[in-house]
Amino acid sequence: MNIVELIRKKREGQTLTKEEIQYLLAGYVEGRVPDYQMSAFLMACYFKGMTEQETYTFTELMLHSGEIIDLSSIPGIKVDKHSTGGVGDKVSLILAPIVASCGVPVPMISGRGLGHTGGTLDKLESIPGFRTDLSIAEYKKVITNIGVVMIGQTKEIAPADKKMYALRDVTATVECIPLIAGSIMSKKLAEGIDALVLDVKTGRGAFMQTRDLSRKLAQTLVKIGTQFGKETLGFITDMNQPLGITIGNWLEVMESVECLRNNRGTNDGSSDLMEVTHLLSGAMIALGKKADSIDEGIEKSKEAIRNGKAYDKFKELVRAQGGDVSAIENFENRQPQPKFASEVHSAESGYVDEIDSLELGLASIALGASREKIDDVIDPKAGIKLNQKVGNKVAAGDSLAVFYTDRESALESGRIRIANAFHISSQKPKSRPLIWDIVDSSGIREWKS
Amino acid sequence: MNIVELIRKKREGQTLTKEEIQYLLAGYVEGRVPDYQMSAFLMACYFKGMTEQETYTFTELMLHSGEIIDLSSIPGIKVDKHSTGGVGDKVSLILAPIVASCGVPVPMISGRGLGHTGGTLDKLESIPGFRTDLSIAEYKKVITNIGVVMIGQTKEIAPADKKMYALRDVTATVECIPLIAGSIMSKKLAEGIDALVLDVKTGRGAFMQTRDLSRKLAQTLVKIGTQFGKETLGFITDMNQPLGITIGNWLEVMESVECLRNNRGTNDGSSDLMEVTHLLSGAMIALGKKADSIDEGIEKSKEAIRNGKAYDKFKELVRAQGGDVSAIENFENRQPQPKFASEVHSAESGYVDEIDSLELGLASIALGASREKIDDVIDPKAGIKLNQKVGNKVAAGDSLAVFYTDRESALESGRIRIANAFHISSQKPKSRPLIWDIVDSSGIREWKS
Repeated sequence: MNIVELIRKKREGQTLTKEEIQYLLAGYVEGRVPDYQMSAFLMACYFKGMTEQETYTFTELMLHSGEIIDLSSIPGIKVDKHSTGGVGDKVSLILAPIVASCGVPVPMISGRGLGHTGGTLDKLESIPGFRTDLSIAEYKKVITNIGVVMIGQTKEIAPADKKMYALRDVTATVECIPLIAGSIMSKKLAEGIDALVLDVKTGRGAFMQTRDLSRKLAQTLVKIGTQFGKETLGFITDMNQPLGITIGNWLEVMESVECLRNNRGTNDGSSDLMEVTHLLSGAMIALGKKADSIDEGIEKSKEAIRNGKAYDKFKELVRAQGGDVSAIENFENRQPQPKFASEVHSAESGYVDEIDSLELGLASIALGASREKIDDVIDPKAGIKLNQKVGNKVAAGDSLAVFYTDRESALESGRIRIANAFHISSQKPKSRPLIWDIVDSSGIREWKS
Repeated sequence: MNIVELIRKKREGQTLTKEEIQYLLAGYVEGRVPDYQMSAFLMACYFKGMTEQETYTFTELMLHSGEIIDLSSIPGIKVDKHSTGGVGDKVSLILAPIVASCGVPVPMISGRGLGHTGGTLDKLESIPGFRTDLSIAEYKKVITNIGVVMIGQTKEIAPADKKMYALRDVTATVECIPLIAGSIMSKKLAEGIDALVLDVKTGRGAFMQTRDLSRKLAQTLVKIGTQFGKETLGFITDMNQPLGITIGNWLEVMESVECLRNNRGTNDGSSDLMEVTHLLSGAMIALGKKADSIDEGIEKSKEAIRNGKAYDKFKELVRAQGGDVSAIENFENRQPQPKFASEVHSAESGYVDEIDSLELGLASIALGASREKIDDVIDPKAGIKLNQKVGNKVAAGDSLAVFYTDRESALESGRIRIANAFHISSQKPKSRPLIWDIVDSSGIREWKS
């Protein structure tokens, strides 16, 4: 087999056989196929795509490039959730303890934030002492003991994906559905799960900016999950404003804790966050056979917040992974103080029509809350707190948001960027769905809740 | 500037500015832009192309990555020819001495054969002692003294192209018109020429297999030449059978010498070779102002063969570059003997309809006459001699060709491959043009000769 011929074949839009994909991927992992050939292949994939069969094979080979964790000794149906990433998306922090407290084990391997979207690992690590770098043995021990664990990708998990993701990031070949699907699913399938819920974001602040692309990605992901024998449900959810009221790692932990304490999430700025959280939790509880339907799952999810069991489970998780529970219990008195806190005011009167989460995500990079490059150091204190959400009526001079940073140089540009993210209209905006579609093995349909 | 953004911009089909192309190319030559980013960019170019302005800028930057040879001290209009490469294409060997003998200086920098097409350097080097690795100082000295010189690309000429060509070759990004045009023209413009004739081959044995693509490439090349202030003429010529009757380095030198001696090329198997040679020579003589028209140039070219001046000039060239002139003068007695000479016979009766030069080119790789990889060693004795050309009537059992090789293992497959290259039809084939089109700065039109 000849690598150049394989690149040419993909370039011409032809379908590669399993042997050919294997030759390419194994060669890449072993170093026989250099980065410059792989990046040409990836760019050809960007233009020519992959068939269903190719995507499946690609995922399978990435999965088998590393270890597949065996959690079969743990009773129950293990269910995880994956989100394609959004701005202010702290759902995992609330959802994992909810679902675990309802008796469904949640083994979760998450990523770091990159670009304008945040990452669950960074949020967790803003809790003093919280360790996300557990070994696989520790990972198994924590989930066995408390029914939930949240760690980062270890070197044993899908090393082919790790190497390829770094290459895609620097060669403008990230935005390609089969490559995205293979990358996500190879990692998720390695966790030891039995079922999976997917949250595919759509809109300005999302990876997939159109609903069409989001639907296509969701369908691809569900198809792969199903092919691997894992019951998989996907949802298309809206990202035309940030979820909840905070962007930034420690700010998001605090909002999550407030939601877990049942102090927020009903008719306030966190209610969109909790609507998505309960939907995804409900789906996981149903997949884990602790509810007969998603709707019943949603009710159980709400109950776990009301009766405090989810909050207790969260504190249990923090303790089990080395975090300081008192920092959570007394966060009001333990909040780290950034050098600058600056308020952004509305220049005009009207209704908040849209909050551009892409702009806020980019602003959060400038403030130090997120990474531009993978080795940037982030500041857990930095971030943005929204005082308005879409639909609110504001008068000129009203506070739109407060932002926090240690960087004096970011004050002026931060204020401008955040102000620009708020689109003010003279008319009250029509309400738009927060949850667009549901995808399962039988197909995709609009979500009516 | 950010390299990933530049790759993404090209991927989205946007136009890069001069500064952006410069940043990318200079970074590549200096090693700041790694191969894996360049190859992703090249694949994006394959799919999205370049505008005229981008192609011009790309060529200019490749040209200025190295030295531009100054031949202004040499009197006369210096004219070179470039061919996109074909099978059995030994035109340069005959044309350069013809044109020089007509008083037009010919500074020629040629390439090596790769894949199924041959290279002028390899043919010249099959002449005992012939040196193609002259320094730039020696290059200038030879053309000053005898009006013609033929060398290989030195390290001073367009180093960006040299580095990028090697990368394109291993990443399936060769077949892209702006990249091809930039590569060809940056080298040609560095030679010190005043005018240029281009022979763009079309058909199965050519780089560009369709007439449309060949026309597009020719137009791009002529446009660039004109933009750089060099009078440039392009021709689309046919490659649906090999030119002349030989394929293989020393065989092609012998056929060329026979043509230079006026022993071949009139109503025989070499007549297509000589028709193309006289056309291109005639165009060069006209561009060099030693004829008032291409037609008059063609007449002068024919005269240079008849009166022996072209042959004398060829021997002068061989001597000036260290070659053994007696090997040329007595090639009949000096022919190196390959281990095997094998005849290929026709299995059926009829007319030769087509001779697949791609197949013959691939067979010549197997025989040892051409390279598969750039560092393969070639055997100057190996090759194929055609006993039939398109239009000939053959009976079953008639000899189609003889092939020569030292490789016993290639005998069986060589015989099959060569036999398959001859398409025999029951009907006499319609004659097709050997010269399709002419391109100059005013446009492209069909060639009627």
